[in-house]
Amino acid sequence: MALKTKITVVGAGPVGSMLAIILSRCNYQVDIFESRADDRLNKSYQGKSINIILSDRAWLALKSIGLYEDVKQCAIPLTKRILSPKDGETSVQNYGDGKQALWSISRDKINQLLLNQAEQEAHVNLHFKQRLTHVDFNSGCSSFTYQKDGRYAHKEVDADYVFAADGAYSKVRRLAQDTPRFNYSQSYMKQCYIELTISANADGSCKLDKNALHLWPRKDFILMALPNSDGSFTCTLFLDYQGKTSFESLNNNETVNAFFVQHFADVLPLLNNPIDEFLNKTANPLFLVSVDPWVINNKVALIGDAAHAMVPFYRQGLNCSFEDCHQLSKIIEECQGDWHKIFPAYQAQRKHNADAISKLSIDNFIEMSQINTDSHAQLRKEIAAKFQYKYPHLWQPVHALVNFCPDISYSQARDKGIQQERIMNEIMQIDDIERCWQDEFIYEKIRVLITK
Amino acid sequence: MALKTKITVVGAGPVGSMLAIILSRCNYQVDIFESRADDRLNKSYQGKSINIILSDRAWLALKSIGLYEDVKQCAIPLTKRILSPKDGETSVQNYGDGKQALWSISRDKINQLLLNQAEQEAHVNLHFKQRLTHVDFNSGCSSFTYQKDGRYAHKEVDADYVFAADGAYSKVRRLAQDTPRFNYSQSYMKQCYIELTISANADGSCKLDKNALHLWPRKDFILMALPNSDGSFTCTLFLDYQGKTSFESLNNNETVNAFFVQHFADVLPLLNNPIDEFLNKTANPLFLVSVDPWVINNKVALIGDAAHAMVPFYRQGLNCSFEDCHQLSKIIEECQGDWHKIFPAYQAQRKHNADAISKLSIDNFIEMSQINTDSHAQLRKEIAAKFQYKYPHLWQPVHALVNFCPDISYSQARDKGIQQERIMNEIMQIDDIERCWQDEFIYEKIRVLITK
Repeated sequence: MALKTKITVVGAGPVGSMLAIILSRCNYQVDIFESRADDRLNKSYQGKSINIILSDRAWLALKSIGLYEDVKQCAIPLTKRILSPKDGETSVQNYGDGKQALWSISRDKINQLLLNQAEQEAHVNLHFKQRLTHVDFNSGCSSFTYQKDGRYAHKEVDADYVFAADGAYSKVRRLAQDTPRFNYSQSYMKQCYIELTISANADGSCKLDKNALHLWPRKDFILMALPNSDGSFTCTLFLDYQGKTSFESLNNNETVNAFFVQHFADVLPLLNNPIDEFLNKTANPLFLVSVDPWVINNKVALIGDAAHAMVPFYRQGLNCSFEDCHQLSKIIEECQGDWHKIFPAYQAQRKHNADAISKLSIDNFIEMSQINTDSHAQLRKEIAAKFQYKYPHLWQPVHALVNFCPDISYSQARDKGIQQERIMNEIMQIDDIERCWQDEFIYEKIRVLITK
Repeated sequence: MALKTKITVVGAGPVGSMLAIILSRCNYQVDIFESRADDRLNKSYQGKSINIILSDRAWLALKSIGLYEDVKQCAIPLTKRILSPKDGETSVQNYGDGKQALWSISRDKINQLLLNQAEQEAHVNLHFKQRLTHVDFNSGCSSFTYQKDGRYAHKEVDADYVFAADGAYSKVRRLAQDTPRFNYSQSYMKQCYIELTISANADGSCKLDKNALHLWPRKDFILMALPNSDGSFTCTLFLDYQGKTSFESLNNNETVNAFFVQHFADVLPLLNNPIDEFLNKTANPLFLVSVDPWVINNKVALIGDAAHAMVPFYRQGLNCSFEDCHQLSKIIEECQGDWHKIFPAYQAQRKHNADAISKLSIDNFIEMSQINTDSHAQLRKEIAAKFQYKYPHLWQPVHALVNFCPDISYSQARDKGIQQERIMNEIMQIDDIERCWQDEFIYEKIRVLITK
């Protein structure tokens, strides 16, 4: 019997675990190495920041490995977003057609479910507390350190191929920076974030609508709340790191209190000790990573955040990463296991799509933070919605394409969005659009523009 | 007596050496650490690739530290460039006014002269064969390894400030990637390069005009020759790494020979074994680096290639780096040694200028490789030259601003170039410009456009 092809997966987060399941089922021998301890053994584990949102791309991938039901049971459907601008009325926007939803889940829960499944696969071995120190990008051999009898030991792991699923701070990617012609960039947003908490009521009920994403848009900053399964909400405050109103300038009880009173008077009574939380927590950076190539020497490939860490404003990070895995599984099948074809096809299919959603994510901060503050923008949306109602097959908002149309690639969704944006710019130039926007000729003009 | 402020300089190349001289004369205690051995002890040292070109920005810096005469004696003036297109006549273009020149010098020679001077300074200590392993970006403490009695030893060096002058592959910059909000990118050009040689004649005379930069532009690739002091020329062949005609595709005697016969028949008889050199040498990558911030925690600053490695198509790498040092010396004086003002001023003055020359350098590959292959481009140049002749105070080609006008910043030079480009685009749209280009109204129109 021929020896099985061996694959090293670095990182046992949700992406590494899903990848391992897929590779095992393609009959590869998979070893996953993770520098941290097995979080499943630690009840008090605090999941990584920002609750995870799953939409249809993630569900498609989860379905293909048979975990759709298990994960869905642990996720909370969000059928709408509720916007509370500072000066203005709270409004409710349905996601999709009202039946469609985004799903909120804690990162540790989904990781747990995927790891449990990976462990049951025929050809997967999990190795925790093993820290990667070196990768040989020519041979596929990796080196790890680990503790043994209180001392650090060292081992080398041979493999035919290596996948780096080691996240936004990928060590493999850092090492790859020294390989020839490796293009790399890391760019920080001027915003950082901290998490704040809204507890459940004493009876376990929620202080806010549980089936919604809550947004308090304030133009230069924004507060967001996502429900947890225990009735609490995890809030994320996005705010500039430096400047007039920033994490740096708000550095004592008085200024932080004044900030919340001035800008978030409506949500202040719901938050647990926001002033203390604000002052005691370190603001987390928001950054994006771009890499080219994703595959080095047809030996080592990057996947997930290691390949395309993005900012969380479209909440597509894990959706994109799961799609990486799912499309890779299809490519492996199409290429009948020939890795000299698999790797180039993987790079060709995924890189431009990750670039597209990464760009959309940056743009979405503006979209999220300035909602409802501009009447012109409101009118644009109403016209687009009316056209969509009349011609549903001709118009879909980008967020719907991104969240609910996994057959449309991120890149196609972005192109479509740019086209729609251009058309709406033209429409908004029409004389007296505020008065005539309901007239038939407006919608005929959009129809002509979109189909030409 | 108060303790002297201590500064660690990482890297003893031309930039580290010049910086040390400047800092010592500002009365700082400077320790330079270099991972390599002292090249001056090694006669057979092969200088870094691509001969260095000095123009007026470098001379201004060298003059300020009193090395103008010593360096100039070792440099060869290039008063012109000689272009030999494949199908067309060889043409000669003077740099500047005919008296102005670019100066060619070997990297090891200028490094030697600067190191000799640094060694004579009152407050400079040189440390060779000491490899940086760590920098504490908060304290300014650095760690180094070195060999002692055949074993590796380790030491820590305290300092008030650290300058990273450790070049395009800067270790300090690599370590800085893990500091908060450090924006970084490395981008590779599709071209790589190798060096080829044209020896001197037996009597020591040159096979080509010694006071010229020689170019064989071939659109997608280019051969360049620069004179050495021994009568030989170092040639650089810039060629795509991958593709139809590339370092990858030209991989045997037959194809490489056919390549030279087809594209460089004119220069082939002058080259020493170009086929062997081509096949035996590894193609070197061309990449640019962009970093922001250049200064971390007002403790550690990047300078020279460590801050702004660029592609060599404008030959301004060292000119820009020397200008970094020279402007820093002026800032230190202006800020009276207050480093909390010096560092922000240094970043503010230098970053956008390095960005500007880096962008100009990329664009110049096209300018260099396509010279003379387009009659329209020729006409553009003639019209611009005629206007410059009539109104010399209103028009200077960008390359003259970059090379011979150190009072104009790189950023201003680039802006000026973009403005002139826009005007020439408008002029070239004039009906029948090929016939009427000498008419007075053309130049009046340019005059109006440039002064409005």
